[in-house]
Amino acid sequence: MNSSRLTKLSESLKGSSQQALALNAGPSLVYLTGLHFHLSERPVVAIFCADHAPVIILPELEMLKLADLSGEIIPFLYGENPAGWELIFQQAIKSLDLDGKRIGVEPRQMRLLEYGLIKAGVPGADFPDASPLVNNLRARKDEDEIASIRKAVKAAQSALEASIPQIRIGMTEKELASELVVQLLRAGSQSDLPFAPIVSSGPNSANPHASPSDRKIHGGDLLVVDWGATVEGYISDLTRTFAVGEVDAEYRKIHQVVLEANAAGREAGRQGSPCANVDIAARSVIEQAGYGKYFTHRTGHGIGMEVHEEPYLRGDNLRVLEPGMAYTVEPGIYLPGGNGVRIEDNLVIRGPQAECLSNMPRDLRIVG
Amino acid sequence: MNSSRLTKLSESLKGSSQQALALNAGPSLVYLTGLHFHLSERPVVAIFCADHAPVIILPELEMLKLADLSGEIIPFLYGENPAGWELIFQQAIKSLDLDGKRIGVEPRQMRLLEYGLIKAGVPGADFPDASPLVNNLRARKDEDEIASIRKAVKAAQSALEASIPQIRIGMTEKELASELVVQLLRAGSQSDLPFAPIVSSGPNSANPHASPSDRKIHGGDLLVVDWGATVEGYISDLTRTFAVGEVDAEYRKIHQVVLEANAAGREAGRQGSPCANVDIAARSVIEQAGYGKYFTHRTGHGIGMEVHEEPYLRGDNLRVLEPGMAYTVEPGIYLPGGNGVRIEDNLVIRGPQAECLSNMPRDLRIVG
Repeated sequence: MNSSRLTKLSESLKGSSQQALALNAGPSLVYLTGLHFHLSERPVVAIFCADHAPVIILPELEMLKLADLSGEIIPFLYGENPAGWELIFQQAIKSLDLDGKRIGVEPRQMRLLEYGLIKAGVPGADFPDASPLVNNLRARKDEDEIASIRKAVKAAQSALEASIPQIRIGMTEKELASELVVQLLRAGSQSDLPFAPIVSSGPNSANPHASPSDRKIHGGDLLVVDWGATVEGYISDLTRTFAVGEVDAEYRKIHQVVLEANAAGREAGRQGSPCANVDIAARSVIEQAGYGKYFTHRTGHGIGMEVHEEPYLRGDNLRVLEPGMAYTVEPGIYLPGGNGVRIEDNLVIRGPQAECLSNMPRDLRIVG
Repeated sequence: MNSSRLTKLSESLKGSSQQALALNAGPSLVYLTGLHFHLSERPVVAIFCADHAPVIILPELEMLKLADLSGEIIPFLYGENPAGWELIFQQAIKSLDLDGKRIGVEPRQMRLLEYGLIKAGVPGADFPDASPLVNNLRARKDEDEIASIRKAVKAAQSALEASIPQIRIGMTEKELASELVVQLLRAGSQSDLPFAPIVSSGPNSANPHASPSDRKIHGGDLLVVDWGATVEGYISDLTRTFAVGEVDAEYRKIHQVVLEANAAGREAGRQGSPCANVDIAARSVIEQAGYGKYFTHRTGHGIGMEVHEEPYLRGDNLRVLEPGMAYTVEPGIYLPGGNGVRIEDNLVIRGPQAECLSNMPRDLRIVG
């Protein structure tokens, strides 16, 4: 249990229209309690109120996870037969006197499985979106969290540097992705990576969300590698684009444009200025070069315990950058029928300006 | 798009009280369409009706994933600003004329995020649990699926055999887990492992769901390794228990009891007999040895695209084992204040009897 975070949560609840927060297994639960559970067929739910010890409903066989916990949490345990779960949920919820109250939930994390069990226990309650409340807490990283993200960046960079000498023409995207994962683990990443690395070559690089395929890396390809590490529960999320031997002049040009857009986006992050500014700074470089319509996604997203979290760096997001916010800057150009480029760094607001945590060379390195 | 599975789905819908099935990103969507999406802050939903081409609502930047698809699916694309998503969902749902109808959903997979967007488009619809309908399709694996699970078992076994010579007294659980992940990738597993391997030693082995810790492996420990591989989108899930040097006589005894329970559970799987029989067969061995109360979980679960799926091998589950069902048999004994043992194999119903896919030695091997 993280008592300072729980205190902040209580204050936030008191200042909101919500009387309680219900979390299922996932990062917000880890953030507040340190308790890790898989999102499985066995529902785990913790309920936090401003003036009451939190309760947690969980399978008997997970009980040992509570043994080393500092701070109070009241367990309600259920057995292996799902027919008995609803009763245990009702007992837990009844102990908190929540009927007719407003119980905040996270729509991005809460499944109908947990929601149905909670709702059956308090048919008269409302379930508003608690994401803004929870994300306000989680978005401002403390120094320990920033240190962990920094380690995750370092591990990721070491892993890619160790993989680059292995890149060969004729190797498949999947083979390079596997090598990179091995190097991530060697560099100290947890095995629960933030995401399976993207290795996309040639025409596949024009798909920003490609999965590594059996395509063999060819001379003349652009090669996009989007990868990250997990260290101490925090993640990094980086992208570099390489040239496999000699590439087309337009590919060199779009790489240069994205490089400048990335620099402009990194430069634009300032405490107190809107998220939109970062997007506008990066996007205008690409637009001025005539490639605006081929930059098909937002400029970045927050990072922390999850690979996508608050704040989102979109041109229409007027939310202000606050101290401790960590995020990506990742402009790209994806040529239809051609290749694509993306260059992604990780930053954090410390002091008046964003500090860039990643420093691996961004220029168009030739590999293969 | 998998046309034979879609045909079976249409038949199932026609024979049910549901007029449509709404799936978000996840294994059932992959099963029916081949489309992989991350469960992210950008919702992806596909809706299937018996007599209409399916529709899919997805972010513009994922559009390229539809390019190589065989078979028809009607896309509804949304942009980066969440404020516009509800309208796109409404247009998609309106095209299917679903108001007042029953739209099945999967409570274990569907989040409030997607559910809220769908519901806003058809306030008059009902959303019953479609899991039984979908799971009936997915639980009976075809020969291609069984072949993939077989490969995942083989990769996992090779990886652990390659890791065993690395086990040393003084090495941490986390170090061994990392080595095992490296070997899983070398053996051909996809980097999206079914789960982070469990390596639990000494007292940690008495926690069936332990995470690898910084505890150093000691002489006299039992060492539980619960691991699996992913190949062609299908998984394996195995456990073996080792002795680190000479161990306590009671630990050797409980290993022998679990070994016999595992054999009885493997033997009990028969087409047409209830899942309960497998649990009862394994559990009665442990009960007769006087350790019944220390076997705290069900005997097994189905495996396939997910590590936990239908059927569940519980003593109260009268569901019948059908051809193509794949599952684990994993009895265990967890001594409070002591060490624990689990031995887990993967089986599939082919012909009248269950075939065991895993064959790695189960006896108490001495390592370290």
